[in-house]
Amino acid sequence: MKPAEDSAASSATEIVRWKTGRTTHHNDQVAREEPLEIRVHGRSVAVTMRTPGHDRELAAGFLLTERIVSERKQLVEIATCTASLEPQNTLDVFLAPGVEVDFARLTRHVFATSSCGLCGKASIEAVKQHFPPVTSNLTISAAILLELPARMRKAQAAFAQTGGLHAAAIFDTRGKLLVLREDVGRHNAVDKILGHGFLENLLPFNAHILLVSGRASFEILQKSLAGGIPVVCAVSAPSSLAVEFARASHQTLVGFLREGGMNVYSHPERVAA
Amino acid sequence: MKPAEDSAASSATEIVRWKTGRTTHHNDQVAREEPLEIRVHGRSVAVTMRTPGHDRELAAGFLLTERIVSERKQLVEIATCTASLEPQNTLDVFLAPGVEVDFARLTRHVFATSSCGLCGKASIEAVKQHFPPVTSNLTISAAILLELPARMRKAQAAFAQTGGLHAAAIFDTRGKLLVLREDVGRHNAVDKILGHGFLENLLPFNAHILLVSGRASFEILQKSLAGGIPVVCAVSAPSSLAVEFARASHQTLVGFLREGGMNVYSHPERVAA
Repeated sequence: MKPAEDSAASSATEIVRWKTGRTTHHNDQVAREEPLEIRVHGRSVAVTMRTPGHDRELAAGFLLTERIVSERKQLVEIATCTASLEPQNTLDVFLAPGVEVDFARLTRHVFATSSCGLCGKASIEAVKQHFPPVTSNLTISAAILLELPARMRKAQAAFAQTGGLHAAAIFDTRGKLLVLREDVGRHNAVDKILGHGFLENLLPFNAHILLVSGRASFEILQKSLAGGIPVVCAVSAPSSLAVEFARASHQTLVGFLREGGMNVYSHPERVAA
Repeated sequence: MKPAEDSAASSATEIVRWKTGRTTHHNDQVAREEPLEIRVHGRSVAVTMRTPGHDRELAAGFLLTERIVSERKQLVEIATCTASLEPQNTLDVFLAPGVEVDFARLTRHVFATSSCGLCGKASIEAVKQHFPPVTSNLTISAAILLELPARMRKAQAAFAQTGGLHAAAIFDTRGKLLVLREDVGRHNAVDKILGHGFLENLLPFNAHILLVSGRASFEILQKSLAGGIPVVCAVSAPSSLAVEFARASHQTLVGFLREGGMNVYSHPERVAA
Protein backbone atom coordinates (compact mmCIF):
# COMPACT_ATOMS: atom_id res chain seq x y z
CA MET A 1 0.00 0.00 0.00
CA LYS A 2 1.32 3.42 -0.92
CA PRO A 3 1.73 5.43 2.29
CA ALA A 4 -0.45 8.52 2.49
CA GLU A 5 1.40 11.82 2.68
CA ASP A 6 1.02 14.85 4.91
CA SER A 7 0.18 18.28 3.53
CA ALA A 8 -0.64 21.59 5.21
CA ALA A 9 -4.35 20.80 5.18
CA SER A 10 -4.36 17.06 5.75
CA SER A 11 -2.46 14.49 7.70
CA ALA A 12 -1.94 10.74 7.17
CA THR A 13 -3.22 8.30 9.77
CA GLU A 14 -3.70 4.53 10.05
CA ILE A 15 -7.26 3.37 10.45
CA VAL A 16 -9.33 0.20 10.67
CA ARG A 17 -12.26 0.27 8.24
CA TRP A 18 -15.46 -1.72 8.82
CA LYS A 19 -17.56 -2.35 5.74
CA THR A 20 -20.22 -5.03 5.20
CA GLY A 21 -18.88 -7.14 8.06
CA ARG A 22 -15.20 -7.05 6.99
CA THR A 23 -12.33 -5.10 8.52
CA THR A 24 -9.38 -3.78 6.55
CA HIS A 25 -6.39 -1.62 7.46
CA HIS A 26 -5.80 1.64 5.58
CA ASN A 27 -3.69 4.73 5.53
CA ASP A 28 -6.19 7.56 5.39
CA GLN A 29 -6.14 11.35 5.27
CA VAL A 30 -7.69 13.47 8.01
CA ALA A 31 -8.14 17.24 8.05
CA ARG A 32 -5.37 18.89 10.05
CA GLU A 33 -6.32 20.80 13.19
CA GLU A 34 -3.76 22.74 15.22
CA PRO A 35 -4.08 25.68 17.62
CA LEU A 36 -3.13 29.14 16.35
CA GLU A 37 -2.37 31.75 18.95
CA ILE A 38 -2.92 35.33 17.76
CA ARG A 39 -1.00 38.02 19.63
CA VAL A 40 -1.12 41.79 19.27
CA HIS A 41 2.12 43.51 20.27
CA GLY A 42 3.08 40.39 22.23
CA ARG A 43 -0.21 40.03 24.11
CA SER A 44 -2.28 36.93 23.49
CA VAL A 45 -5.78 37.82 22.29
CA ALA A 46 -7.08 34.50 20.94
CA VAL A 47 -6.37 30.85 20.42
CA THR A 48 -8.32 29.23 17.61
CA MET A 49 -8.23 25.62 16.46
CA ARG A 50 -7.60 25.89 12.75
CA THR A 51 -6.25 24.07 9.72
CA PRO A 52 -2.70 25.36 9.08
CA GLY A 53 -2.31 27.48 5.95
CA HIS A 54 -3.08 31.13 5.17
CA ASP A 55 -2.56 31.93 8.86
CA ARG A 56 -1.71 35.58 8.24
CA GLU A 57 -5.03 35.95 6.45
CA LEU A 58 -6.75 34.30 9.40
CA ALA A 59 -5.13 36.72 11.86
CA ALA A 60 -5.97 39.74 9.69
CA GLY A 61 -9.55 38.60 9.16
CA PHE A 62 -10.00 37.97 12.88
CA LEU A 63 -8.75 41.48 13.75
CA LEU A 64 -10.98 43.00 11.06
CA THR A 65 -14.14 41.23 12.21
CA GLU A 66 -13.29 41.94 15.86
CA ARG A 67 -13.04 45.65 14.92
CA ILE A 68 -9.38 46.13 15.87
CA VAL A 69 -8.46 47.27 12.36
CA SER A 70 -10.58 48.73 9.59
CA GLU A 71 -8.00 50.04 7.09
CA ARG A 72 -5.05 48.26 5.51
CA LYS A 73 -2.53 50.86 6.69
CA GLN A 74 -3.38 50.19 10.34
CA LEU A 75 -1.79 46.74 10.12
CA VAL A 76 1.98 47.05 9.83
CA GLU A 77 3.25 43.48 10.13
CA ILE A 78 2.22 39.95 11.02
CA ALA A 79 5.28 38.10 12.29
CA THR A 80 5.89 34.53 13.35
CA CYS A 81 7.10 34.21 16.92
CA THR A 82 10.62 33.03 16.12
CA ALA A 83 11.56 32.47 19.75
CA SER A 84 8.79 29.91 20.02
CA LEU A 85 9.17 26.14 19.92
CA GLU A 86 6.17 26.11 17.58
CA PRO A 87 6.68 29.28 15.53
CA GLN A 88 4.20 28.04 12.93
CA ASN A 89 1.40 28.19 15.53
CA THR A 90 1.97 31.67 16.94
CA LEU A 91 1.56 34.98 15.12
CA ASP A 92 2.30 38.42 16.49
CA VAL A 93 0.54 41.37 14.90
CA PHE A 94 2.01 44.86 14.90
CA LEU A 95 -0.30 47.82 14.41
CA ALA A 96 0.39 51.38 13.33
CA PRO A 97 0.94 53.98 16.06
CA GLY A 98 -2.35 55.34 17.31
CA VAL A 99 -4.43 52.20 16.70
CA GLU A 100 -6.01 51.46 20.05
CA VAL A 101 -6.74 47.94 21.20
CA ASP A 102 -9.35 47.17 23.83
CA PHE A 103 -7.69 44.02 25.14
CA ALA A 104 -10.32 43.48 27.81
CA ARG A 105 -13.15 43.38 25.27
CA LEU A 106 -11.20 41.16 22.89
CA THR A 107 -10.39 38.51 25.46
CA ARG A 108 -13.79 38.63 27.12
CA HIS A 109 -15.58 37.53 23.95
CA VAL A 110 -18.68 39.34 25.22
CA PHE A 111 -19.68 41.43 22.26
CA ALA A 112 -23.01 42.93 23.12
CA THR A 113 -23.75 44.55 26.43
CA SER A 114 -22.44 44.44 29.95
CA SER A 115 -25.91 44.85 31.40
CA CYS A 116 -27.79 41.80 32.52
CA GLY A 117 -29.92 40.74 29.59
CA LEU A 118 -28.59 39.72 26.25
CA CYS A 119 -30.81 38.86 23.33
CA GLY A 120 -30.52 38.30 19.63
CA LYS A 121 -31.73 41.83 18.91
CA ALA A 122 -29.09 43.35 21.19
CA SER A 123 -26.43 41.23 19.47
CA ILE A 124 -27.52 42.52 16.07
CA GLU A 125 -27.64 46.13 17.31
CA ALA A 126 -24.13 45.83 18.76
CA VAL A 127 -22.75 44.75 15.39
CA LYS A 128 -24.68 47.43 13.49
CA GLN A 129 -23.12 50.15 15.62
CA HIS A 130 -19.78 49.32 14.06
CA PHE A 131 -20.59 47.88 10.65
CA PRO A 132 -23.32 49.77 8.78
CA PRO A 133 -25.95 47.84 6.77
CA VAL A 134 -25.00 47.23 3.13
CA THR A 135 -26.41 49.63 0.55
CA SER A 136 -25.47 47.74 -2.61
CA ASN A 137 -28.22 47.48 -5.23
CA LEU A 138 -26.41 44.64 -6.97
CA THR A 139 -28.50 41.92 -8.59
CA ILE A 140 -27.35 38.42 -9.33
CA SER A 141 -28.90 35.89 -11.66
CA ALA A 142 -30.50 32.89 -9.97
CA ALA A 143 -29.01 30.68 -12.67
CA ILE A 144 -25.50 31.78 -11.72
CA LEU A 145 -26.13 31.28 -8.00
CA LEU A 146 -27.25 27.71 -8.68
CA GLU A 147 -23.90 26.96 -10.34
CA LEU A 148 -21.72 28.17 -7.45
CA PRO A 149 -21.75 25.06 -5.21
CA ALA A 150 -20.37 22.86 -8.02
CA ARG A 151 -17.68 25.46 -8.79
CA MET A 152 -16.67 25.60 -5.14
CA ARG A 153 -16.54 21.82 -4.75
CA LYS A 154 -14.32 21.50 -7.78
CA ALA A 155 -11.81 23.86 -6.15
CA GLN A 156 -11.92 22.12 -2.75
CA ALA A 157 -8.73 20.08 -2.93
CA ALA A 158 -8.50 19.17 0.75
CA PHE A 159 -12.13 18.28 1.26
CA ALA A 160 -11.86 15.65 -1.44
CA GLN A 161 -9.06 14.02 0.55
CA THR A 162 -10.49 14.23 4.05
CA GLY A 163 -14.22 14.94 3.97
CA GLY A 164 -13.52 17.08 7.03
CA LEU A 165 -13.13 20.68 5.96
CA HIS A 166 -15.48 23.61 5.71
CA ALA A 167 -15.02 25.91 2.75
CA ALA A 168 -15.77 29.57 2.12
CA ALA A 169 -15.47 31.23 -1.28
CA ILE A 170 -15.92 34.66 -2.82
CA PHE A 171 -17.41 34.95 -6.31
CA ASP A 172 -18.07 37.95 -8.53
CA THR A 173 -21.52 38.57 -10.04
CA ARG A 174 -20.65 36.58 -13.16
CA GLY A 175 -19.93 33.57 -10.95
CA LYS A 176 -16.15 33.73 -11.22
CA LEU A 177 -14.36 32.28 -8.19
CA LEU A 178 -11.95 34.85 -6.74
CA VAL A 179 -10.71 33.14 -3.59
CA LEU A 180 -11.49 29.93 -1.69
CA ARG A 181 -10.25 28.87 1.73
CA GLU A 182 -10.77 25.66 3.69
CA ASP A 183 -10.62 25.05 7.43
CA VAL A 184 -11.89 22.70 10.14
CA GLY A 185 -13.63 25.77 11.58
CA ARG A 186 -16.14 27.50 9.32
CA HIS A 187 -15.56 30.86 11.04
CA ASN A 188 -11.84 30.46 10.28
CA ALA A 189 -12.53 29.81 6.60
CA VAL A 190 -14.52 33.07 6.47
CA ASP A 191 -11.84 34.96 8.43
CA LYS A 192 -9.21 33.75 5.92
CA ILE A 193 -11.34 35.00 3.00
CA LEU A 194 -11.80 38.40 4.64
CA GLY A 195 -8.16 38.58 5.72
CA HIS A 196 -7.15 37.90 2.11
CA GLY A 197 -9.36 40.77 0.96
CA PHE A 198 -8.00 43.03 3.68
CA LEU A 199 -4.31 42.29 3.08
CA GLU A 200 -4.68 42.57 -0.71
CA ASN A 201 -6.72 45.80 -0.48
CA LEU A 202 -9.76 44.20 -2.14
CA LEU A 203 -12.33 45.22 0.50
CA PRO A 204 -15.17 45.91 0.63
CA PHE A 205 -16.46 42.87 -1.26
CA ASN A 206 -19.55 44.93 -2.12
CA ALA A 207 -20.12 43.47 -5.61
CA HIS A 208 -19.52 39.92 -4.49
CA ILE A 209 -21.15 36.74 -3.21
CA LEU A 210 -19.92 34.69 -0.24
CA LEU A 211 -20.66 30.96 -0.35
CA VAL A 212 -20.11 28.71 2.68
CA SER A 213 -20.18 24.93 2.44
CA GLY A 214 -22.21 24.32 5.60
CA ARG A 215 -24.73 26.25 7.67
CA ALA A 216 -25.10 30.01 8.13
CA SER A 217 -25.01 31.24 11.73
CA PHE A 218 -25.02 34.69 13.35
CA GLU A 219 -21.23 34.63 13.39
CA ILE A 220 -20.94 34.03 9.64
CA LEU A 221 -23.31 36.92 8.89
CA GLN A 222 -21.50 39.21 11.33
CA LYS A 223 -18.16 38.50 9.65
CA SER A 224 -19.60 38.89 6.15
CA LEU A 225 -20.98 42.33 7.08
CA ALA A 226 -17.50 43.35 8.25
CA GLY A 227 -16.43 42.68 4.64
CA GLY A 228 -19.40 44.58 3.19
CA ILE A 229 -20.71 41.48 1.39
CA PRO A 230 -24.28 41.97 0.02
CA VAL A 231 -25.13 38.31 -0.80
CA VAL A 232 -24.38 35.39 1.55
CA CYS A 233 -25.18 31.84 0.42
CA ALA A 234 -25.01 28.57 2.36
CA VAL A 235 -25.27 25.03 1.03
CA SER A 236 -27.13 24.08 4.20
CA ALA A 237 -29.54 25.72 6.68
CA PRO A 238 -29.38 29.18 8.26
CA SER A 239 -30.23 29.85 11.92
CA SER A 240 -32.99 32.16 13.09
CA LEU A 241 -30.49 34.79 14.18
CA ALA A 242 -28.67 34.65 10.84
CA VAL A 243 -32.00 35.40 9.15
CA GLU A 244 -32.81 38.28 11.53
CA PHE A 245 -29.31 39.66 11.12
CA ALA A 246 -29.46 39.58 7.31
CA ARG A 247 -32.82 41.39 7.29
CA ALA A 248 -31.45 44.12 9.59
CA SER A 249 -28.16 44.50 7.71
CA HIS A 250 -29.87 44.54 4.27
CA GLN A 251 -27.98 41.44 3.19
CA THR A 252 -29.47 38.79 0.92
CA LEU A 253 -29.30 35.43 2.69
CA VAL A 254 -29.69 32.26 0.61
CA GLY A 255 -29.83 28.80 2.22
CA PHE A 256 -30.07 25.20 0.97
CA LEU A 257 -28.35 26.29 -2.26
CA ARG A 258 -28.12 22.83 -3.80
CA GLU A 259 -29.66 20.40 -6.27
CA GLY A 260 -31.01 23.14 -8.51
CA GLY A 261 -32.92 24.97 -5.78
CA MET A 262 -32.53 27.51 -2.99
CA ASN A 263 -34.39 29.32 -0.21
CA VAL A 264 -34.06 33.10 -0.04
CA TYR A 265 -34.50 34.30 3.55
CA SER A 266 -33.95 38.04 3.15
CA HIS A 267 -33.82 40.75 0.47
CA PRO A 268 -34.86 38.53 -2.47
CA GLU A 269 -34.85 41.64 -4.71
CA ARG A 270 -31.14 40.98 -5.41
CA VAL A 271 -31.89 37.59 -6.99
CA ALA A 272 -32.97 37.99 -10.62
CA ALA A 273 -34.81 35.35 -12.64
CA MET B 1 -51.37 28.45 3.92
CA LYS B 2 -51.16 27.27 7.52
CA PRO B 3 -48.75 29.55 9.37
CA ALA B 4 -45.70 27.79 10.79
CA GLU B 5 -45.38 27.89 14.55
CA ASP B 6 -42.49 28.76 16.85
CA SER B 7 -41.06 26.29 19.34
CA ALA B 8 -38.04 26.42 21.64
CA ALA B 9 -35.82 24.88 18.99
CA SER B 10 -37.23 26.38 15.82
CA SER B 11 -38.73 29.59 14.60
CA ALA B 12 -41.10 30.38 11.74
CA THR B 13 -39.96 32.64 8.93
CA GLU B 14 -41.20 33.68 5.49
CA ILE B 15 -39.04 32.65 2.57
CA VAL B 16 -38.95 32.71 -1.21
CA ARG B 17 -38.17 29.27 -2.64
CA TRP B 18 -36.53 28.80 -6.07
CA LYS B 19 -37.00 25.38 -7.61
CA THR B 20 -36.66 24.42 -11.28
CA GLY B 21 -37.04 28.01 -12.41
CA ARG B 22 -40.17 28.81 -10.35
CA THR B 23 -40.47 30.93 -7.22
CA THR B 24 -42.99 30.27 -4.47
CA HIS B 25 -43.59 31.85 -1.08
CA HIS B 26 -43.49 29.68 2.05
CA ASN B 27 -43.55 29.80 5.79
CA ASP B 28 -40.56 27.74 6.82
CA GLN B 29 -38.90 26.66 10.06
CA VAL B 30 -35.34 27.68 10.93
CA ALA B 31 -33.25 26.50 13.88
CA ARG B 32 -33.36 29.02 16.71
CA GLU B 33 -30.12 30.72 17.71
CA GLU B 34 -29.92 33.10 20.67
CA PRO B 35 -27.04 34.17 22.92
CA LEU B 36 -26.78 32.63 26.38
CA GLU B 37 -24.69 34.49 28.91
CA ILE B 38 -23.28 32.27 31.66
CA ARG B 39 -22.38 34.01 34.90
CA VAL B 40 -20.72 32.65 38.01
CA HIS B 41 -21.64 34.55 41.19
CA GLY B 42 -22.73 37.47 39.02
CA ARG B 43 -19.58 37.62 36.89
CA SER B 44 -19.91 36.97 33.18
CA VAL B 45 -17.67 34.08 32.08
CA ALA B 46 -19.03 33.23 28.64
CA VAL B 47 -21.52 34.10 25.95
CA THR B 48 -22.42 31.26 23.62
CA MET B 49 -24.78 31.29 20.66
CA ARG B 50 -27.10 28.38 21.33
CA THR B 51 -30.51 26.94 20.62
CA PRO B 52 -32.75 27.71 23.62
CA GLY B 53 -33.72 24.70 25.72
CA HIS B 54 -31.88 22.68 28.39
CA ASP B 55 -29.92 25.83 29.24
CA ARG B 56 -29.12 24.73 32.80
CA GLU B 57 -27.58 21.57 31.38
CA LEU B 58 -25.56 23.70 28.98
CA ALA B 59 -24.24 25.89 31.81
CA ALA B 60 -23.42 22.86 33.97
CA GLY B 61 -21.72 21.03 31.09
CA PHE B 62 -19.71 24.13 30.23
CA LEU B 63 -18.47 24.51 33.82
CA LEU B 64 -17.64 20.80 34.00
CA THR B 65 -15.63 20.77 30.78
CA GLU B 66 -13.93 24.05 31.73
CA ARG B 67 -12.88 22.37 35.02
CA ILE B 68 -14.72 24.76 37.35
CA VAL B 69 -16.73 21.93 38.91
CA SER B 70 -16.04 18.21 39.08
CA GLU B 71 -18.59 16.94 41.63
CA ARG B 72 -22.33 17.47 41.77
CA LYS B 73 -22.28 18.94 45.29
CA GLN B 74 -20.01 21.81 44.16
CA LEU B 75 -22.86 23.28 42.11
CA VAL B 76 -25.53 24.73 44.39
CA GLU B 77 -27.89 26.53 42.06
CA ILE B 78 -28.35 27.74 38.50
CA ALA B 79 -30.67 30.75 38.55
CA THR B 80 -32.20 32.88 35.83
CA CYS B 81 -31.28 36.54 36.11
CA THR B 82 -34.74 37.82 37.03
CA ALA B 83 -33.69 41.49 36.97
CA SER B 84 -32.82 41.12 33.31
CA LEU B 85 -34.89 42.21 30.34
CA GLU B 86 -34.05 38.85 28.79
CA PRO B 87 -34.03 36.49 31.78
CA GLN B 88 -34.27 33.49 29.49
CA ASN B 89 -30.85 34.31 28.03
CA THR B 90 -28.85 34.84 31.23
CA LEU B 91 -28.01 32.22 33.85
CA ASP B 92 -26.18 32.80 37.10
CA VAL B 93 -24.43 29.84 38.69
CA PHE B 94 -23.84 29.61 42.43
CA LEU B 95 -21.10 27.31 43.68
CA ALA B 96 -20.50 25.76 47.09
CA PRO B 97 -18.21 27.63 49.50
CA GLY B 98 -14.58 26.77 48.85
CA VAL B 99 -14.93 26.15 45.11
CA GLU B 100 -12.36 28.42 43.53
CA VAL B 101 -12.87 30.00 40.14
CA ASP B 102 -9.98 31.21 38.01
CA PHE B 103 -11.92 33.93 36.20
CA ALA B 104 -8.88 35.10 34.26
CA ARG B 105 -8.29 31.66 32.73
CA LEU B 106 -11.98 31.17 31.98
CA THR B 107 -12.41 34.40 30.13
CA ARG B 108 -9.07 34.20 28.32
CA HIS B 109 -10.03 30.97 26.54
CA VAL B 110 -6.33 30.12 26.38
CA PHE B 111 -6.26 26.60 27.70
CA ALA B 112 -2.75 25.39 27.15
CA THR B 113 0.29 27.40 28.03
CA SER B 114 1.22 31.01 28.53
CA SER B 115 4.65 30.47 26.99
CA CYS B 116 5.19 31.36 23.36
CA GLY B 117 4.59 28.22 21.40
CA LEU B 118 1.39 26.29 21.34
CA CYS B 119 0.97 23.02 19.52
CA GLY B 120 -1.49 20.19 19.31
CA LYS B 121 0.63 18.06 21.64
CA ALA B 122 0.70 20.82 24.29
CA SER B 123 -3.08 21.18 23.98
CA ILE B 124 -3.52 17.45 24.58
CA GLU B 125 -1.10 17.46 27.53
CA ALA B 126 -2.92 20.41 29.11
CA VAL B 127 -6.21 18.51 29.04
CA LYS B 128 -4.63 15.27 30.32
CA GLN B 129 -3.32 17.06 33.39
CA HIS B 130 -6.90 17.53 34.54
CA PHE B 131 -8.83 14.67 32.96
CA PRO B 132 -7.03 11.31 33.14
CA PRO B 133 -7.16 8.91 30.16
CA VAL B 134 -10.06 6.46 30.26
CA THR B 135 -9.34 2.97 31.60
CA SER B 136 -12.59 1.27 30.60
CA ASN B 137 -12.17 -2.16 28.97
CA LEU B 138 -15.69 -2.03 27.60
CA THR B 139 -16.35 -3.64 24.24
CA ILE B 140 -19.21 -2.79 21.92
CA SER B 141 -20.54 -4.79 19.02
CA ALA B 142 -19.91 -3.30 15.60
CA ALA B 143 -23.43 -4.29 14.59
CA ILE B 144 -24.89 -2.16 17.39
CA LEU B 145 -22.67 0.83 16.52
CA LEU B 146 -23.90 0.69 12.93
CA GLU B 147 -27.51 1.05 14.15
CA LEU B 148 -26.92 4.17 16.25
CA PRO B 149 -27.16 6.88 13.55
CA ALA B 150 -30.64 5.75 12.51
CA ARG B 151 -31.75 5.66 16.16
CA MET B 152 -30.43 9.16 16.73
CA ARG B 153 -32.07 10.56 13.60
CA LYS B 154 -35.42 9.13 14.61
CA ALA B 155 -35.20 11.05 17.89
CA GLN B 156 -34.12 14.34 16.26
CA ALA B 157 -37.40 16.20 16.24
CA ALA B 158 -36.03 19.66 15.51
CA PHE B 159 -33.60 18.63 12.79
CA ALA B 160 -36.46 17.18 10.80
CA GLN B 161 -38.13 20.60 10.87
CA THR B 162 -35.15 22.82 10.18
CA GLY B 163 -32.23 20.82 8.78
CA GLY B 164 -30.09 23.15 10.86
CA LEU B 165 -29.25 21.48 14.15
CA HIS B 166 -26.37 19.39 15.37
CA ALA B 167 -27.21 16.48 17.65
CA ALA B 168 -25.32 14.63 20.34
CA ALA B 169 -26.59 11.46 22.00
CA ILE B 170 -25.51 9.04 24.71
CA PHE B 171 -26.19 5.31 24.24
CA ASP B 172 -25.51 2.33 26.48
CA THR B 173 -23.62 -0.71 25.19
CA ARG B 174 -26.83 -2.39 24.07
CA GLY B 175 -27.55 0.61 21.85
CA LYS B 176 -30.29 2.09 24.03
CA LEU B 177 -30.59 5.88 23.67
CA LEU B 178 -30.32 7.52 27.10
CA VAL B 179 -30.30 11.22 26.24
CA LEU B 180 -30.22 13.33 23.06
CA ARG B 181 -29.75 17.07 22.73
CA GLU B 182 -29.82 19.34 19.68
CA ASP B 183 -28.20 22.72 19.15
CA VAL B 184 -26.95 25.05 16.41
CA GLY B 185 -23.50 24.61 18.02
CA ARG B 186 -22.17 21.07 18.19
CA HIS B 187 -20.08 21.91 21.29
CA ASN B 188 -23.29 23.11 22.97
CA ALA B 189 -25.09 19.85 22.16
CA VAL B 190 -22.24 17.93 23.85
CA ASP B 191 -22.20 20.33 26.83
CA LYS B 192 -25.95 19.76 27.28
CA ILE B 193 -25.43 15.98 27.26
CA LEU B 194 -22.65 16.24 29.84
CA GLY B 195 -24.55 18.79 31.92
CA HIS B 196 -27.52 16.42 31.99
CA GLY B 197 -25.24 13.63 33.27
CA PHE B 198 -23.69 15.97 35.83
CA LEU B 199 -26.95 17.37 37.19
CA GLU B 200 -28.60 13.93 37.33
CA ASN B 201 -25.55 12.30 38.96
CA LEU B 202 -25.04 9.92 36.03
CA LEU B 203 -21.34 10.67 35.43
CA PRO B 204 -18.94 9.27 34.48
CA PHE B 205 -20.47 7.90 31.29
CA ASN B 206 -17.80 5.17 31.38
CA ALA B 207 -19.94 2.35 29.97
CA HIS B 208 -21.41 4.54 27.24
CA ILE B 209 -21.07 5.71 23.66
CA LEU B 210 -21.30 9.33 22.50
CA LEU B 211 -22.56 9.91 18.97
CA VAL B 212 -22.37 13.32 17.27
CA SER B 213 -24.21 14.09 14.04
CA GLY B 214 -21.36 15.97 12.35
CA ARG B 215 -17.59 16.05 12.59
CA ALA B 216 -15.32 15.25 15.54
CA SER B 217 -12.88 17.99 16.53
CA PHE B 218 -10.40 18.42 19.38
CA GLU B 219 -13.08 20.24 21.37
CA ILE B 220 -15.57 17.36 21.12
CA LEU B 221 -12.96 14.85 22.31
CA GLN B 222 -11.87 17.14 25.13
CA LYS B 223 -15.44 17.46 26.37
CA SER B 224 -16.13 13.74 26.04
CA LEU B 225 -13.06 12.97 28.17
CA ALA B 226 -14.39 15.30 30.87
CA GLY B 227 -17.40 12.94 30.97
CA GLY B 228 -15.20 9.83 31.03
CA ILE B 229 -16.69 8.51 27.76
CA PRO B 230 -14.69 5.57 26.30
CA VAL B 231 -16.23 5.47 22.78
CA VAL B 232 -16.87 8.58 20.65
CA CYS B 233 -18.56 8.22 17.26
CA ALA B 234 -19.16 10.79 14.54
CA VAL B 235 -21.33 10.51 11.46
CA SER B 236 -18.76 12.57 9.57
CA ALA B 237 -14.97 13.10 9.57
CA PRO B 238 -12.62 13.59 12.54
CA SER B 239 -9.76 16.10 12.55
CA SER B 240 -6.10 15.16 12.98
CA LEU B 241 -6.06 16.55 16.52
CA ALA B 242 -9.20 14.62 17.47
CA VAL B 243 -7.41 11.43 16.35
CA GLU B 244 -4.23 12.29 18.28
CA PHE B 245 -6.27 13.22 21.33
CA ALA B 246 -8.24 9.94 21.29
CA ARG B 247 -5.05 7.89 21.02
CA ALA B 248 -3.50 9.72 23.97
CA SER B 249 -6.65 9.57 26.13
CA HIS B 250 -7.28 5.88 25.35
CA GLN B 251 -10.63 6.67 23.77
CA THR B 252 -12.04 4.77 20.81
CA LEU B 253 -12.78 7.24 18.02
CA VAL B 254 -15.09 6.16 15.19
CA GLY B 255 -15.74 8.38 12.17
CA PHE B 256 -17.91 8.18 9.04
CA LEU B 257 -20.36 5.96 10.96
CA ARG B 258 -22.96 5.70 8.20
CA GLU B 259 -24.31 3.55 5.41
CA GLY B 260 -23.28 0.28 7.07
CA GLY B 261 -19.64 1.23 7.51
CA MET B 262 -17.24 3.09 9.77
CA ASN B 263 -13.60 4.06 10.21
CA VAL B 264 -11.97 3.35 13.57
CA TYR B 265 -9.18 5.84 14.24
CA SER B 266 -8.03 4.76 17.69
CA HIS B 267 -8.30 1.85 20.12
CA PRO B 268 -10.17 -0.53 17.79
CA GLU B 269 -9.95 -3.26 20.48
CA ARG B 270 -13.23 -1.93 21.94
CA VAL B 271 -15.14 -2.71 18.73
CA ALA B 272 -16.15 -6.37 18.59
CA ALA B 273 -17.17 -8.24 15.45
